[in-house]
Amino acid sequence: MALLETSKYSQGSVLGSVNPDLASERQTASFCVEKLTALLDGGAEQTRIRRAVVEAIQSDPVFSSENQYFQTQNERYEAAVRKAVHLQKKMHEMGWTENGPEYKYIYRALSGDVAFLLHRVFMRSISVLGSDKQIAKWIPLAAQLRLIGSYAQTELGHGTYLQGLETTAIFDIATQEFILNTPKISAMKWWPGDMGRSATHTVVFAQLYIHGKCYGIHPFIVQIRSLQDHSLCPGITAGDIGPKMNFEAIDNGYLMLKNVRIPRENMLSKFCEVRPDGTYVRQGSQKINYFTMTAVRISLISDEVLTPLMKACTIAIRYSVVRRQSKLKPGEQEAKILDYQTQQEKLLPQLAAAYAFHFINNYLQELFDRGYREIQRKNFDMLPELHALSSGFKAVITHHSTAAVEICLRACGGHGYSLLSGLPSLYTKILASCIYEGENTILLLQTARFLIKCFMAASAGQPVPPSVTYLAAVKPGKCPAKNKSDFLSPDIYTEAYQHVAVRLISSTAAKLQDLIQSGAKKYDAWNQCTVQLVQAAKAHCHYITVKNFAETVEKLETKAGIQRIMKHLCDLFALHGIFLNTGAFLHDGYISAAQMDMVTASYLDLLAVIRKDAVPLVDAFDFTDKSLNSALGSYDGQVYQRLYEWAQKSPTNKMNPAYERYLKPLLHNALSKL
Amino acid sequence: MALLETSKYSQGSVLGSVNPDLASERQTASFCVEKLTALLDGGAEQTRIRRAVVEAIQSDPVFSSENQYFQTQNERYEAAVRKAVHLQKKMHEMGWTENGPEYKYIYRALSGDVAFLLHRVFMRSISVLGSDKQIAKWIPLAAQLRLIGSYAQTELGHGTYLQGLETTAIFDIATQEFILNTPKISAMKWWPGDMGRSATHTVVFAQLYIHGKCYGIHPFIVQIRSLQDHSLCPGITAGDIGPKMNFEAIDNGYLMLKNVRIPRENMLSKFCEVRPDGTYVRQGSQKINYFTMTAVRISLISDEVLTPLMKACTIAIRYSVVRRQSKLKPGEQEAKILDYQTQQEKLLPQLAAAYAFHFINNYLQELFDRGYREIQRKNFDMLPELHALSSGFKAVITHHSTAAVEICLRACGGHGYSLLSGLPSLYTKILASCIYEGENTILLLQTARFLIKCFMAASAGQPVPPSVTYLAAVKPGKCPAKNKSDFLSPDIYTEAYQHVAVRLISSTAAKLQDLIQSGAKKYDAWNQCTVQLVQAAKAHCHYITVKNFAETVEKLETKAGIQRIMKHLCDLFALHGIFLNTGAFLHDGYISAAQMDMVTASYLDLLAVIRKDAVPLVDAFDFTDKSLNSALGSYDGQVYQRLYEWAQKSPTNKMNPAYERYLKPLLHNALSKL
Repeated sequence: MALLETSKYSQGSVLGSVNPDLASERQTASFCVEKLTALLDGGAEQTRIRRAVVEAIQSDPVFSSENQYFQTQNERYEAAVRKAVHLQKKMHEMGWTENGPEYKYIYRALSGDVAFLLHRVFMRSISVLGSDKQIAKWIPLAAQLRLIGSYAQTELGHGTYLQGLETTAIFDIATQEFILNTPKISAMKWWPGDMGRSATHTVVFAQLYIHGKCYGIHPFIVQIRSLQDHSLCPGITAGDIGPKMNFEAIDNGYLMLKNVRIPRENMLSKFCEVRPDGTYVRQGSQKINYFTMTAVRISLISDEVLTPLMKACTIAIRYSVVRRQSKLKPGEQEAKILDYQTQQEKLLPQLAAAYAFHFINNYLQELFDRGYREIQRKNFDMLPELHALSSGFKAVITHHSTAAVEICLRACGGHGYSLLSGLPSLYTKILASCIYEGENTILLLQTARFLIKCFMAASAGQPVPPSVTYLAAVKPGKCPAKNKSDFLSPDIYTEAYQHVAVRLISSTAAKLQDLIQSGAKKYDAWNQCTVQLVQAAKAHCHYITVKNFAETVEKLETKAGIQRIMKHLCDLFALHGIFLNTGAFLHDGYISAAQMDMVTASYLDLLAVIRKDAVPLVDAFDFTDKSLNSALGSYDGQVYQRLYEWAQKSPTNKMNPAYERYLKPLLHNALSKL
Repeated sequence: MALLETSKYSQGSVLGSVNPDLASERQTASFCVEKLTALLDGGAEQTRIRRAVVEAIQSDPVFSSENQYFQTQNERYEAAVRKAVHLQKKMHEMGWTENGPEYKYIYRALSGDVAFLLHRVFMRSISVLGSDKQIAKWIPLAAQLRLIGSYAQTELGHGTYLQGLETTAIFDIATQEFILNTPKISAMKWWPGDMGRSATHTVVFAQLYIHGKCYGIHPFIVQIRSLQDHSLCPGITAGDIGPKMNFEAIDNGYLMLKNVRIPRENMLSKFCEVRPDGTYVRQGSQKINYFTMTAVRISLISDEVLTPLMKACTIAIRYSVVRRQSKLKPGEQEAKILDYQTQQEKLLPQLAAAYAFHFINNYLQELFDRGYREIQRKNFDMLPELHALSSGFKAVITHHSTAAVEICLRACGGHGYSLLSGLPSLYTKILASCIYEGENTILLLQTARFLIKCFMAASAGQPVPPSVTYLAAVKPGKCPAKNKSDFLSPDIYTEAYQHVAVRLISSTAAKLQDLIQSGAKKYDAWNQCTVQLVQAAKAHCHYITVKNFAETVEKLETKAGIQRIMKHLCDLFALHGIFLNTGAFLHDGYISAAQMDMVTASYLDLLAVIRKDAVPLVDAFDFTDKSLNSALGSYDGQVYQRLYEWAQKSPTNKMNPAYERYLKPLLHNALSKL
C-alpha cells in the first residue's frame, strides 16, 4: 500500500503544527485558560501534581492505550492485568502511596483500563464489615497482592433488591463451618469484576441460615481459585460472563457454589457474629453501610461520569471548528460547523452541563465530608439527606451525561461513529453508569420518597434538612421577568426552578394522598404515582444544580475573565433546562408564553456568545492527546491525517481473511468465463 | 469447569418449555396474534412467504450468526463474504430471483450481515446514471459477480454537501482519458462499504475539469484492484478504515487516486457526456437523481430502523415479564418488572412507536409508488413533497427509534448491557441510521425549507401539495376536551398536533421575516432560526404520523380484537407525545393546564391497559429466536439458562491470556513469602 506523502497531503501543515482553524479559536479566548484549569483542579498546586502523574503514566509504554480500539476482549484483559501489576512497581518507584496527593489522579490517567479494581472493593468491604481480627488477617495479604479479591453480590436474577438474593450459607455447628450453595440458576453470582478470570478470593453475599432459621444477607470470604495453579476450588464453578458493550478489560464473572465449606471465622463479623454454639449476635450500627453506598455513588461521579463527559465535549468541539461543511454565506469558503446554530445548540449546552456537574460534584463532596465527620462522632442525622442527594444526583448526572456524550458523538457525523474518534468507547462506558451502583429509576424513587416525606413534614411545620427547607416556603406568584435580559438574572431562573420543583413535589404528594383517601392501598397508590415521582425528584436535583452553579459563580474572583464566562455558562445551563422543559414552567402560568419566548431568545443569544470561547473552555479541561485517544480531539486538530494514519494500523489492514477462500475463487471463476 | 445440571438449575423447567411467567402473558391476549402478524406483513400470503424464506435461511448453518458477539472484525468480515457467496448458490437452489416475492425477506432474515451490499448500490448507480451502452456492458458483469463494485462518494472532509467534494477528474483530450486525483487528504474517499478489502471496481464521484474549467460533480467507473491477484491497481491507495461502533462485517474503506487514467467511456453518461473533442453535453433531466435519494431514505426505514426497533421491543418486553424484582405488594413474591408503572412508561410508548412507524412507513411507500408512476410519465410535480417527506421522516423515525432502542437496552438493567442480550448491537447499528443517507439535522432543515415555502404560498392563497394543505386552514381556537376520556378521541389529539405544527411553522416563518425586515441577510436570518425550524419540521412529521395512525385504525376490520388494541396503541402514541412535549401544547393555551392533567391521567391509565397485551403485541412481530439472537428475548423466556450457557462459549472462557505471564508470578511470589 502506497504511503501518503505527509507534507503534501496534510492540510497545509505537518503533524505537530496546529491546524490554523483551531489555532485561531485559541487566540481570541476571553479568559485565562490556565487559571480556569487551576480552578477546576482546586488550585494550581493540584494542577501541578496531576500533570506530573499524567506525565509519569503516559510516558511509560506499558500503560499505553493506543491500540485498544483494535484489541479483542482477551487482549484488553491481558493488558489490564499487565498494567495493574506494573502499577505496583510504578507507585513504589515514584513514591506514590494510597494516601498521597497523587493517588486520585492515577486512575484518571489510566482511563480506568486497569485490572484489580474489584480487589479494592474486596479490601474496602473487609475494612468496613470485618472485625479487627479479620482486618488484621486479610488486609495485609490483599494489600501485598498475595491474593486477588473480588466482591460477589449481584446474582443472575437479583440486582438492586438485595433482600432477594438467593445464595445460601448454612451454619454447620458440628464442623463450625458455613456451607455455601447456589440453590438455583437465578442465584448464580453474575457480573462481579476481577472474578471471571483473576480472583482467588471473593466476598460472597448470602442468606445466613442457623438451625433452619434465616437471618438475612451476610458477607462471607470464600476462596475460589488455588493460589498454586489457579484451578477452581472444589465445589466452585466460575468463569467469564462474556462480551459487554464496554469494559472489555474487566473480567466480569459468574460463580456457583456447591456445598462449599468455609470456617466460621470467614463471615465478616463487625456487625453480626455467629457464636460457636450457633447463637446469632448483632452488634454495632449497620447505618454505616448505607454511608458506604452513598460514598461510592458520589465518588463515581468524578472519574466515571465527569471525565468522559469532558472528554467528549473536548473531542466534539475541537472537531467542530476543524470540520467545514456547506456555505453559511454565499461566495465564502465552507463554514466551520460550529458556526451553525444547530451545532452550537447540540454541543454548548453539554459543555455548560459539564461545568454545572463539576460544581455540583464539589458541593456533594463537601456535604459528604461533613457527613463523614458527623458520623465519626456517632451522629447519623445527615444520613437520610445524604442518601437522598447521592441517589438522585447519581441518577440525574449519569443520565444527563450519557445523553450528552451521545449528542457529542452524533454531532461529529460519520467520524464520530469510528472507534478512532474515541467517542463510541466514551459513550458505551458512561452508559453503564446509569445501571451500576443502583439503577437510576430506583434511585430517583428513593430520592422522591425522601422529598415527599420532607414535604409532609415541612407542611406540618416540622424541621427538615437544609437542602429541602425551600419546600416549606411555597410562594404561588409569577415570574417577574419583563424582558429577555431579565432571564440572565440568576435570581429569576433559580426561583423558577425552585417553583417547578415545589409544584411537582406538592402535586404528586397530593395525588398520592387522594389515591389513598379514595381507598387505594399505599403500595398501589405509590406505584400509580411513580412516573410523576421520578419527575419530581429530577426537578429537585435540577434546581439544586442551578442554584449551586449560580452561587459558585457569585463567589468566583472577577479577574482574568473567569467569572464572566462562568456566568454565561451558568445562564446557558439554566435557560437550556427551561427551553427543554417548557411545559413544566408554563403549566401553572409561573412563566407566561411571552416570557417563554424571552427565554428562547436569551438562550439562543447565549449560544453565539459562548461559541467564541468554546475551544478555550474545553482546553481548560486539560486532557492530553493520550488521555483523549481520539483522532478528532487531538490538541493540534490534524484530524484527517490522524484518522488515515491510525486506520492503516488496524488489523483489518494486515491481511484479507476472505481472499484466498472466497474472493479468489469467485473472481478467477469469473475471469475464466471471459 | 463443572457443567451445570440443567434439569436441576433451570427455573422449574427445562429448555424448550416456556417459562411460566411468560406463558401466562400469552394466555390472556385480547386479540388474535396471527391476524395481527398478517396485517403487519400485508396479508397472510406474505406471512407464509416470509416464514419460508426465514426458515430456509436460518436452517442453513452457513448463515448462522450465533457466534457474532464473540467475533473480531476480521472474522465478521470473512463470515459476511462467505454468506454473500453462499447466498448466490442458495437463491439459485431455492428458485428465488431479484424480482420474486421472496427477495425482500432475504436481507431481513440475514439481519444484514452479508457482504456486497454496496455492490448493489454500484449496480443501481450504473442503471440510473449510465447510458444504455454502459448498462449493457457493466450490469451483466456485476450481476454475475465477475467484478465486485463499490460506490465512492463520501470523502474524509466531505459528506452531505456534495458540491464540496474535492476529488478531481481532468479530461485529457490527447489520450481520450480522464485523469483522477486526490488533491489533498480531505479529498480521500472514506467510508464506502465493500471498498476496504473486497471491491475491484468503484464509482468515483469527482469534479470534472475540461480545458481547465470545472463542470461539477460527475460519476466515473474506476478499477481499483486486479481481478487476477487482487493487488491494488497503479496509482491506487486503498484499505479499510478500521473499527467502528458496529458494521464489523462491512469493509468500509478509504481510497486515494494518483494520476489514475480511465477511458472516456467510463464517465457515467446518461445525463452528461464529454465528447471526444472535449465538448460537454448535458442531456435529459437530473431530477431523477433526487428521486433516487428519496427512494433510498424510504427504503432504509423498514429494514434498518423498524426491524431493530421491533426486535428491541420484543427482547425488552419478554424479559420484563420474566425478570422479577422487589415486592410491589408486601407479602407477595417479587413482582414482574413490567408491573411497575415506571417500566411500563419506558417500554410501552416504544412499542406504540414501532406500530406508528410501521404504518407511516406504509403511507410513505404508497406515496413513493405513486410518485414513481408519475415520474415515469415525466411528471415531476410530486418531487418536492416526496423529498421533504422522505427527508423529515428519515430523520424523525431514525432519531426516535434510536432513542427507543436505547431505552429498551437500559430498561433491561445489567443484562441489557451484555452483548448476549442482543440489545447493544441493535443500538449501535440503528444509531448509524441517524448519520448515513443524510445527517438528520440537515434533513430536517430541508423539510423545514419546504414547509416555510408552502406556508408562505398557502398564506398567499396559492395551492400547496396535499400533505401540507392543513397550513392553509389555520384555526386559532382551544382544545374542546372536557374530561380525560375526551383525550381518547383521535379527533381531539390529531387536531392538537395539527395546531402545534401550524403554530411552530407560522411563528418561525414570522421570526424569519422579522429578521430579514430588520436588515439581516437572508442566510444569517435562516441560521438564526434553525433551532426553531428543526422543531417545526419535527412537529409536522409528528402530526402526520399521529394522523396516519388514527386513519389506519379507523379502516381496520373490527373483528378479532385487532382494531381495539391498535386504537389503544394509537392513543398511547399520541398522548405520550403530548406528555413529553407539554410545553408545545401549553404555550399558547391551546391545551390548558387542567386539560394537560387529563392528558397525563389518560396516558397513565393507558399504560396499565396495554401492559396486559404487551407480550402478544411483540409476539406479533414474529421474530424467530435466531433472528433475535438474544439471551433475553427468546420465545421460551429461559433467560438465565441461556445467558449462562452462552457465556461459557465465549473466547474469554477458553484460556486465560494473563495467567502464565502475570498472575502466576504474582501469586507464586506471594506464596513464597508465606
